[in-house]
Amino acid sequence: MTGYRAPLADFNFLFDELVDLEAIAGLGNFDIVSRDLVRQIVEEAGRFASEVLAPLNGSGDREGVKFQDGNVEMPEGFKAAYRQFVEAGWNNVSVAEAEGGQGLPRVLSVVLEEIFMAANKAFNMCPSLTLGAIEAISKAATPELKGKYLPKLVSGEWSGTMNLTEPQAGSDVGALRCRAETQEDGTFRLFGQKIYITFGEHDLSENIVHLVLARLPDAPAGVKGISLFLVPKYLVGDDGTANTRNDVHCISVEHKLGTHASPTCVMSYGDNEGAVGYLVGEPNRGLQAMFVMMNSARLTVGMEGIALSERAYQQALEFARERVQGTSVARKGEPVAIIQHPDVKRMLLTMKSQIEAMRATALAIAQAIDFSNHHSDPAVREKNRAFADFMTPIFKGWATETGIELTGTAIQIHGGCGYIEETGVAQHVRDSYIGTIYEGTTGIQSIDLVGRKLMMDQGQAMKAVLADMRACEADLASLGDKVAKMRSGFSAAVNALEEAAASIQQQFGQNPEDAFAVSVPFLRLAGLVIGGWQMCRSLVAAWQSDTYRENKFVTSNFYCSHVLPQALALRSVVVAGAATVSEVAESDF
Amino acid sequence: MTGYRAPLADFNFLFDELVDLEAIAGLGNFDIVSRDLVRQIVEEAGRFASEVLAPLNGSGDREGVKFQDGNVEMPEGFKAAYRQFVEAGWNNVSVAEAEGGQGLPRVLSVVLEEIFMAANKAFNMCPSLTLGAIEAISKAATPELKGKYLPKLVSGEWSGTMNLTEPQAGSDVGALRCRAETQEDGTFRLFGQKIYITFGEHDLSENIVHLVLARLPDAPAGVKGISLFLVPKYLVGDDGTANTRNDVHCISVEHKLGTHASPTCVMSYGDNEGAVGYLVGEPNRGLQAMFVMMNSARLTVGMEGIALSERAYQQALEFARERVQGTSVARKGEPVAIIQHPDVKRMLLTMKSQIEAMRATALAIAQAIDFSNHHSDPAVREKNRAFADFMTPIFKGWATETGIELTGTAIQIHGGCGYIEETGVAQHVRDSYIGTIYEGTTGIQSIDLVGRKLMMDQGQAMKAVLADMRACEADLASLGDKVAKMRSGFSAAVNALEEAAASIQQQFGQNPEDAFAVSVPFLRLAGLVIGGWQMCRSLVAAWQSDTYRENKFVTSNFYCSHVLPQALALRSVVVAGAATVSEVAESDF
Repeated sequence: MTGYRAPLADFNFLFDELVDLEAIAGLGNFDIVSRDLVRQIVEEAGRFASEVLAPLNGSGDREGVKFQDGNVEMPEGFKAAYRQFVEAGWNNVSVAEAEGGQGLPRVLSVVLEEIFMAANKAFNMCPSLTLGAIEAISKAATPELKGKYLPKLVSGEWSGTMNLTEPQAGSDVGALRCRAETQEDGTFRLFGQKIYITFGEHDLSENIVHLVLARLPDAPAGVKGISLFLVPKYLVGDDGTANTRNDVHCISVEHKLGTHASPTCVMSYGDNEGAVGYLVGEPNRGLQAMFVMMNSARLTVGMEGIALSERAYQQALEFARERVQGTSVARKGEPVAIIQHPDVKRMLLTMKSQIEAMRATALAIAQAIDFSNHHSDPAVREKNRAFADFMTPIFKGWATETGIELTGTAIQIHGGCGYIEETGVAQHVRDSYIGTIYEGTTGIQSIDLVGRKLMMDQGQAMKAVLADMRACEADLASLGDKVAKMRSGFSAAVNALEEAAASIQQQFGQNPEDAFAVSVPFLRLAGLVIGGWQMCRSLVAAWQSDTYRENKFVTSNFYCSHVLPQALALRSVVVAGAATVSEVAESDF
Repeated sequence: MTGYRAPLADFNFLFDELVDLEAIAGLGNFDIVSRDLVRQIVEEAGRFASEVLAPLNGSGDREGVKFQDGNVEMPEGFKAAYRQFVEAGWNNVSVAEAEGGQGLPRVLSVVLEEIFMAANKAFNMCPSLTLGAIEAISKAATPELKGKYLPKLVSGEWSGTMNLTEPQAGSDVGALRCRAETQEDGTFRLFGQKIYITFGEHDLSENIVHLVLARLPDAPAGVKGISLFLVPKYLVGDDGTANTRNDVHCISVEHKLGTHASPTCVMSYGDNEGAVGYLVGEPNRGLQAMFVMMNSARLTVGMEGIALSERAYQQALEFARERVQGTSVARKGEPVAIIQHPDVKRMLLTMKSQIEAMRATALAIAQAIDFSNHHSDPAVREKNRAFADFMTPIFKGWATETGIELTGTAIQIHGGCGYIEETGVAQHVRDSYIGTIYEGTTGIQSIDLVGRKLMMDQGQAMKAVLADMRACEADLASLGDKVAKMRSGFSAAVNALEEAAASIQQQFGQNPEDAFAVSVPFLRLAGLVIGGWQMCRSLVAAWQSDTYRENKFVTSNFYCSHVLPQALALRSVVVAGAATVSEVAESDF
């Protein structure tokens, strides 16, 4: 088991060369943003993650959570770590100052998310979901509800959850049946069962504030009849005290492949008199409010793919440097650490290059979110919102799928030792497999991408991205012969993406089933090429720098040679593969 | 949790249309082979697997093995199942009749391996390793040793193990230190520790016969100083009784990611007076004898990839048929089972088509092994041996890597439910990750392929395979327009393989490090294209058949459109990707 160190060099590169910190500081909302301060915060977060969170990652996995009589006991050490986390204010860095948070830009909070998740993904699920609850309440709740609930959610004394799924309503949220009965005092009573509720019950915080989707008595069927309710574990009196137990209970926790230290609860609402709930936002418009949380959560889930890959990479790299096995191919007969073996080097580069590509992409999205929220020019806001909306499903699907592959590569680098749980690397793989499922499976992301994002504004978002890629291609050309091969690889990949996008738009127009038969390959293609774009962008930016040039040359060069060629294969699948799915009937299986 | 049914339709297709059963029957060794008998045996094995082994797969995983005071207790039900397995004779179907086995051809035993591993991989590790021990003893031991040990290994009363790995000697077997001291009576005393010994200790059989690699006192360093010893748990007296405990003990069992019901033991030899051992084969030639076992075991490990994928596929298919979620894209608004969703169909086809491709490949290798062992014409024997030797590392690496991907796809089809251990599909993923490691990692397979198999006989084996692929391409052309697209896809993939093979041979000649930097992508490429070849071969064979034509059209068509295009990407990596690895120094990470 190895520790974790925040990859400061790459973060520094991104904030020095790729992120426009000056412009973000100039937005007015983040006047405290300076390069030095950013470095300081990231380093401090890294220290906290290494010292407090990372040591509990393996023990939390082995111990898991204990469920008894409706209560969930967290693993040893988690309570103390949560207290320290909250006292240091790491829980609300991204919350607006007006709400009592620290108002850091998304471009910084996304990096902190990576760090905390790499150190201890299960732990980080709790504050991460609380942020979603804060966001929804801030946006849609009445001033009274805000006054009662926000301050303690922001302080971390209380935590929050999202309650969507029911046994018959997973990806199909519209099928949910949980019902809310109107009361004379304007409150509601909720009845029903919710499953897969992360941190639905636990002992880290004093109170738990559930945001619950349910149907009002007169609600229309489907997604247009869903309302959002705030249902606290303990009801809050007018004096702010929370002592009365509400009729919402955890009735079991799931035994999962991974993230054992994150309780996944079955929640029962209204077994007795009904769970008291308060409407958040307008009746029957709950899904819109919830989507606010989900969109933001999808970027966060994508970060898991990076975080777990980075953690696994650090462990694999350390192992590869220490493990002596076999002899050098180049210097015959000399025993060497396995990092000297070409295939091990290839595997490490496969990890490192894709981690850097995903990370640069995440920051580009986060920066666009900051601009879209705070820029003074509505046109700039709109352009950035379109970019972030377009990129989010791609990033979420691509980064989580890649996370599974890369954590698996770390097992392979460890050989037999990787299969032994004590080594700790298998945990990262187990923890990864949920990322491609929650907040919408990869298939759901691809439907959002192809059915909505690719089509919005007549494909403007896609066109804008392609134009930026072409500009990057031209920048790359200016770097000379050393990058000529890289440029031609990137160029071919951009062509592949452009052709595939045109083809899938056409297919969608003719027969949506065809487009959805190849929408996941299209998402993968888009992710891969966007990653290549960010690596080329990184190289162009690093070219002028003494510090980062060689590092970015190694990884972008590898990415263009070993990863990007897949774009050609995926293009072919997207353009010509739909029929071999659409023509197949259920009886053919 | 679902059951398992042997995929009889595909087995029947293979034996009806693709395997040359008449020729195998004509070899003289397998005179009992007829189409009816083969069907009967496969059906019976399927029934046994479904009824006896499959129900213990999940419970064995949850319960795991218990280690106490040097003893290993197997999970509930395993002992009774083993007794039934042995009584039915499933343990020795592939052992020659002369040795007391049933002398079935490899082409049939490989199918039985798939069936038993799909039903319960952990269970099957025990008889599978025993077969390896039987093979090594048959080939290399003295008549006296054979007389004492073979009959009870063949009957299943005793089981066998392979002991290679030591903490400092994994892939690098030559680094092993376990030593054997010569005794005056011609026996040896062994001292040392072995790790990762599958079924090194357990309570299924009365005695355990360890085959152990160790060094004689005067042995040269490295792989040329390794000898093979037979070391029984209980020493066998001249009357055949085995009562005296030998000085070999299990000192712990590993806690692994998967295959929990297969004990992975740390074995200590000679803690006291030394473990009595008997030399098998010539001194210092132990590795050759062990390689006999390993080569055969690599085909078996490849079968795990198929078996676990098939089991996961059956479970995913059942779930996809039953789970109603969302509405039809084609018939708007109508609730449908998720198998109707294009992306779910795509995932199921991704599994089914690759499983069929791997299975057809396995049978082609197995048939070649039968011919290579028993054909009357030495030239035919030699040609088939070269084919099997060439194909084995490709198949092992490709099938096990694909097994990880496809079992993961089954989780994705299940959505959130797939992440819950009770569902049972996550076990298949956990069980898969060891396949790419033991009997040589994928990297080791690729070194064998590129450094040895591709180069042997001036690349004749590769050339012969390419020639067969070209012939298949021509056959495909004769099927007409319906397969035109498929043919062009296959054609492009064969070209890609041919170019990549030429390139990697050239690179190996100039600088082996370069070749090894892209040897795994080359292995994947070879596996993919070989799979395509077998699917096209299958389609050609099925074309005349009323029974199989549509089925094989669906899967071969999908394979050519969705899987084979990766060949283009991998070709590019092999041809142009080495420098981006070779130029990277350890300090660049």
